[in-house]
Amino acid sequence: MKQNKVAVYRKEHFNAAHRLHNHAWSDEKNATVFGSCNNKNFHGHNYELIVKVTGEPNPDTGYVLDLKVLSALIKKEILDQFDHKNLNLDTVYFQQVNPTAENIAKVIYQLLRDKLDEQLELKIFLYETERNYVEYPA
Amino acid sequence: MKQNKVAVYRKEHFNAAHRLHNHAWSDEKNATVFGSCNNKNFHGHNYELIVKVTGEPNPDTGYVLDLKVLSALIKKEILDQFDHKNLNLDTVYFQQVNPTAENIAKVIYQLLRDKLDEQLELKIFLYETERNYVEYPA
Amino acid sequence: MKQNKVAVYRKEHFNAAHRLHNHAWSDEKNATVFGSCNNKNFHGHNYELIVKVTGEPNPDTGYVLDLKVLSALIKKEILDQFDHKNLNLDTVYFQQVNPTAENIAKVIYQLLRDKLDEQLELKIFLYETERNYVEYPA
Amino acid sequence: MKQNKVAVYRKEHFNAAHRLHNHAWSDEKNATVFGSCNNKNFHGHNYELIVKVTGEPNPDTGYVLDLKVLSALIKKEILDQFDHKNLNLDTVYFQQVNPTAENIAKVIYQLLRDKLDEQLELKIFLYETERNYVEYPA
Amino acid sequence: MKQNKVAVYRKEHFNAAHRLHNHAWSDEKNATVFGSCNNKNFHGHNYELIVKVTGEPNPDTGYVLDLKVLSALIKKEILDQFDHKNLNLDTVYFQQVNPTAENIAKVIYQLLRDKLDEQLELKIFLYETERNYVEYPA
Amino acid sequence: MKQNKVAVYRKEHFNAAHRLHNHAWSDEKNATVFGSCNNKNFHGHNYELIVKVTGEPNPDTGYVLDLKVLSALIKKEILDQFDHKNLNLDTVYFQQVNPTAENIAKVIYQLLRDKLDEQLELKIFLYETERNYVEYPA
Repeated sequence: MKQNKVAVYRKEHFNAAHRLHNHAWSDEKNATVFGSCNNKNFHGHNYELIVKVTGEPNPDTGYVLDLKVLSALIKKEILDQFDHKNLNLDTVYFQQVNPTAENIAKVIYQLLRDKLDEQLELKIFLYETERNYVEYPA
Repeated sequence: MKQNKVAVYRKEHFNAAHRLHNHAWSDEKNATVFGSCNNKNFHGHNYELIVKVTGEPNPDTGYVLDLKVLSALIKKEILDQFDHKNLNLDTVYFQQVNPTAENIAKVIYQLLRDKLDEQLELKIFLYETERNYVEYPA
Repeated sequence: MKQNKVAVYRKEHFNAAHRLHNHAWSDEKNATVFGSCNNKNFHGHNYELIVKVTGEPNPDTGYVLDLKVLSALIKKEILDQFDHKNLNLDTVYFQQVNPTAENIAKVIYQLLRDKLDEQLELKIFLYETERNYVEYPA
Repeated sequence: MKQNKVAVYRKEHFNAAHRLHNHAWSDEKNATVFGSCNNKNFHGHNYELIVKVTGEPNPDTGYVLDLKVLSALIKKEILDQFDHKNLNLDTVYFQQVNPTAENIAKVIYQLLRDKLDEQLELKIFLYETERNYVEYPA
Repeated sequence: MKQNKVAVYRKEHFNAAHRLHNHAWSDEKNATVFGSCNNKNFHGHNYELIVKVTGEPNPDTGYVLDLKVLSALIKKEILDQFDHKNLNLDTVYFQQVNPTAENIAKVIYQLLRDKLDEQLELKIFLYETERNYVEYPA
Repeated sequence: MKQNKVAVYRKEHFNAAHRLHNHAWSDEKNATVFGSCNNKNFHGHNYELIVKVTGEPNPDTGYVLDLKVLSALIKKEILDQFDHKNLNLDTVYFQQVNPTAENIAKVIYQLLRDKLDEQLELKIFLYETERNYVEYPA
């Protein structure tokens, strides 16, 4: 077996406000299902974002992808849109979509997937708190 | 020298939204001074709160203060008011006072100071992010 | 390819005493194989438990599984039995089975597997110390 | 003002079992006061120990104290007695003294104080869990 | 389905100097591609190394592999060669191979693979910083 | 008592190579005293730097010092000189002075002290590894 693939990980973070809410539901149902996460005035998190990129290292550089390049890409595509923002009000992605960690991870995946070489595999880990986090795709 | 005092620490956390804003200033000045922290739609943090209590251990229990008791006190006095809340809109403390980490720490100090035995010394550490935190009193 | 699955993780912890011991062996052999972990008076750990659940998010909530629900399930099925306990003496699971991290993880897996929807995949990570941990199933 | 003093810190850890118990009390009172920490079959922790030594750096080495030397001292005086042990049963220090974090820190302080140069100041931080810790002297 | 495999992880660390450099390139090209990582006088890292070994637990011990044995193996095969060393100058592995995290992980993999039972699977995680890390094989 | 002072902390990091060496000593004595830290080809660290600034918050901003300003100051005065450098060869500070953590902390203190308002108190914490760190002034 020839094992050439290596995964590289870059960790970034952003601070954002959000609330969980399903517009198709009554306020009562939202409060019941989402509890304090449904607070109408929002709450917030220090999101820790880990981006995993898998591929074959370039034989000249020894890099799968220069992590400075990946960090700059995450900054441009994700942090500039999400950091110090209200995810529900300040971004276009969560007008209809509920900003659960699951859904935020999927949005981040799609934004980065569009900018990465097809031959590179991509995975997103998103920590909402140190104790609650998600992985996409699983 | 007789050294009898021991400090005990309890770490708790809460998630909250806030914005930095001085109501006496113009929007322009607020934006200039506070930058993205002034975002009118709020942003948020996972605040890590460390409460330090110093005193002489009780000779019968060996405790300065039972940390389960301290944890319950922090929950009742602080977390129930601040967790999953908007600090500017959902609490009475930051209507006029700017919710910087410095000011949040002072409010937490006062709320706990009022409930603790006078012979116990109190100090608050508040982490806004892993890289930015404050201590009061210093 | 349609990628719908997301993994969600919940981290909990419990403190327990244990000793490693194979009842079929002599005391000498146990001491040789398990060293200080075989101490007859027990030693202990702050176990960090990470439960990973993989599935398709519910389109209405955006949740694979509400992590408050998962946390409550872990508390009821695992922590209430294991926290502040002696794993060898106070639980039914390690009367004959040696409470290595590997075996504890398998017991936790089975206890939670029985309570989770069949369509959800389950994986357990158990940290005995920050530097020693296990994953089941691998 | 001439500021010559520097503090150096060394972090070590040990795993131990213990139970909280006051021999002068009834079992009922012990259970009421100490709760699950009083479990007669013991529970345990990964204790994180941070030793702080303050003094003037040696002008030839630039060291207050070589941290390899401090680490070896902690290993010999503390870890060899406490690691993978039952603090109540396997050590001489907690036969009468309740092994709360406060009391363990005081015992560690005394054991190290006796071995360190008088001109060096000593302070002990002991983490029972990531969220509960103590400092002595305070 | 019979799920017998468990993965065990051991975390170790080493401190080393390195520089990124492709000997086939001009100094200018090296500086352009590797930036400050190409500094001719070297820079350094606290590398965190996590070794994952997957297999079926031994029914007598409950261990996939005794982590004390794995720790000793890592010490002998890796740390004794890499810790407090200059990876470019003091080891034989990076005379021609650029010591990127990707390439260091592959070297560590091969060194450990040769010493482990064939039935055990092996994976290496190497943290160059808390925010930049790699996994091999991916 | 009027308690007005608050301490604010900012954590930054830099990666550097160094070796411990006293030029007034023989190679043998250096090797004996500093061991592997004396390796002539250098080794390296991810230094974690925590800068603590204590003062009275500005009543208009609620800040002791804007941590973005402090972060920029640390970047300009410290990181630009130390990050991805060889402390012995690439900086002017450790030509004669041994780059122990103690001495690096003192140099950082002086560089920042010169740029900060006199009314602000300053303290430096420098982590050479997670387990070895120093504080100046103590």
